[in-house]
Amino acid sequence: MANYRHIDTEKARRFCERIFRSYGFTEEESQTITDVLIRADLYGIESHGMQRLIRYHNEIGSGFVDVRAKPEIVHETGISAVIDARKWAGQLAAVQGMKLAIAKARSAGCGMVSVRNSNHYGIAGYYSGMAVEADLLGICMTNSEAISVPTFSREAMIGSNPIAVAMPADPVPFSYDAATTVVSRGKLEVYNKNGKALPDQWALDAGGNPSANAAEVLHNIVRKLGGGIAPLGGAGELNGGHKGYGLGLIVDIFTAVFSGGLNSNHVSVTPGLNGICHYFMALDYGLFGDKQAIKARLSTFLRELRESKKAEGRERVYTHGEKEVEMMAARLNGQIPVNEKTLEEMRAIAAGQRVDWEF
Amino acid sequence: MANYRHIDTEKARRFCERIFRSYGFTEEESQTITDVLIRADLYGIESHGMQRLIRYHNEIGSGFVDVRAKPEIVHETGISAVIDARKWAGQLAAVQGMKLAIAKARSAGCGMVSVRNSNHYGIAGYYSGMAVEADLLGICMTNSEAISVPTFSREAMIGSNPIAVAMPADPVPFSYDAATTVVSRGKLEVYNKNGKALPDQWALDAGGNPSANAAEVLHNIVRKLGGGIAPLGGAGELNGGHKGYGLGLIVDIFTAVFSGGLNSNHVSVTPGLNGICHYFMALDYGLFGDKQAIKARLSTFLRELRESKKAEGRERVYTHGEKEVEMMAARLNGQIPVNEKTLEEMRAIAAGQRVDWEF
Repeated sequence: MANYRHIDTEKARRFCERIFRSYGFTEEESQTITDVLIRADLYGIESHGMQRLIRYHNEIGSGFVDVRAKPEIVHETGISAVIDARKWAGQLAAVQGMKLAIAKARSAGCGMVSVRNSNHYGIAGYYSGMAVEADLLGICMTNSEAISVPTFSREAMIGSNPIAVAMPADPVPFSYDAATTVVSRGKLEVYNKNGKALPDQWALDAGGNPSANAAEVLHNIVRKLGGGIAPLGGAGELNGGHKGYGLGLIVDIFTAVFSGGLNSNHVSVTPGLNGICHYFMALDYGLFGDKQAIKARLSTFLRELRESKKAEGRERVYTHGEKEVEMMAARLNGQIPVNEKTLEEMRAIAAGQRVDWEF
Repeated sequence: MANYRHIDTEKARRFCERIFRSYGFTEEESQTITDVLIRADLYGIESHGMQRLIRYHNEIGSGFVDVRAKPEIVHETGISAVIDARKWAGQLAAVQGMKLAIAKARSAGCGMVSVRNSNHYGIAGYYSGMAVEADLLGICMTNSEAISVPTFSREAMIGSNPIAVAMPADPVPFSYDAATTVVSRGKLEVYNKNGKALPDQWALDAGGNPSANAAEVLHNIVRKLGGGIAPLGGAGELNGGHKGYGLGLIVDIFTAVFSGGLNSNHVSVTPGLNGICHYFMALDYGLFGDKQAIKARLSTFLRELRESKKAEGRERVYTHGEKEVEMMAARLNGQIPVNEKTLEEMRAIAAGQRVDWEF
């Protein structure tokens, strides 16, 4: 198990902003990208937090991310749009996409925006949360480079393809954000950094058989040597692996098929092009009646779930988003634990970018 | 393992139609309900086919299903509606709901219909398939009586809550239709009829611990004694059970929270009232550009998935809906295998309803 060091949250934020400024992003853009990144660490989602800095650093350096891209709306109706992000930073394309979806939902009840030629956008829950702040239901999806092996295949063909759905509720909004694979690639990266063996059902080797070796699986994914991560439900059909496979496929429909971008199996294949695709939906739940009454019904249902009888040995049943809200409350004006290896990567980035290192 | 007898498909269809006529449904209504039921058997989804006749029979007899109900649209906008089904047969309420969603999608690009106070509607894929026939993308959801245990709970709080998504493609449409639990309750019923032990990860006993006993789990579900079926991803968080739990919860938002009906944990609790809720969405994928080009992109992606390298020992990678189309082609002008126990139940129903028995 690797060591963790706690660093001041606001200091971490200012550091990341300076790093992104150093690549040529504007101050506002740097703040937006950093806000998404730090939010992951605040939520306790280490895999999508600052440990991803090295990846963004490399992708900006090698031309995958175009710092000065000018995205274009290539198709639009009153309730829908397609945006070509032209290799802009994923976080910026995503914020633009969800803002457009929210604007359409405010005027027409519903807005659906499919985005092509983008990059990794971090935690999907950040953008569905934007809809919640606008008192709407929000849905986000993204595809990614192929890491997930379809049922009975031995070839990674589909991305981690997370789905996020969020809706206002009291006292805590509902916020679901999860890969359609058993785990995200980020979690394999954390296991690899910590030198831990993978649990059963998480990953497959080059022949399509179970593997506990995170390093090998990650290596094979990058070089397309076969195998990868199992869909939600595991390998085969017995425990519903074909369901997770189908959910990942559906994400590719809304993101890549709709936008005319690259499906997961073509993402990050061409040098200098990730071509990741997203989908954003904002829905005014007032389309179905009185908003206060609908929100109250959701709040009641979530409370009933939390108050349901606990399994033997368990003390709490969560609803989705609760853990993250509690974790953020503790960390927002405090500290974030960062893996020592991540800190080493950050220090090296700072040196290369001539940004002060204060940790 | 129980014995199966093959019966003529058209004879089975006419038999079911006569049974539903005998309850007082009109000829057209009887044909619709039967078409949904037989379609499940044609697709090879035995759990939702004629083996469900006994359940519908009992629910009509005990007043859960009101044969002469007049459903009402209680809220409506250009792209949305809420229907109170007033205890009508689930299949009839569902066909009405999807027809309304399709009409709205044709005029406004998108139609979303949430339905309350309905009953079991059979296979969700039947209704998403209606959207495909109209050259639209279709989404269906339904809640059900609580059978699924939230992560760290020992109380069934959420239904099997299947999600169906279908979209036109060549040569075979994409058609996903799956419970958000590891398996549907119908599959437990089939295991129970066949006297087979349940695989690991499928079900939980009254204390929230794993159980292989289908009869006991089904008994506990009906009497609300604790335990039930695990969400997709299994018990606990390790393999993503919290994801399946969240997906089931989302289905309850679109169906019950939106419609003002009963959430899964309140379904089938009041004598004579199931109160099941559905959701139907039809989406004109032309909202995102040229329909032929979009459909062609999906067809290509599905082909690439089917042509991906096979796992060791496997000969074929399927896309969702393929198996069902092939099975239906074989059975449509042929025969359907029916469990002897199901045939016994059907014979008893026929005797009680004074319908000729010809099998």
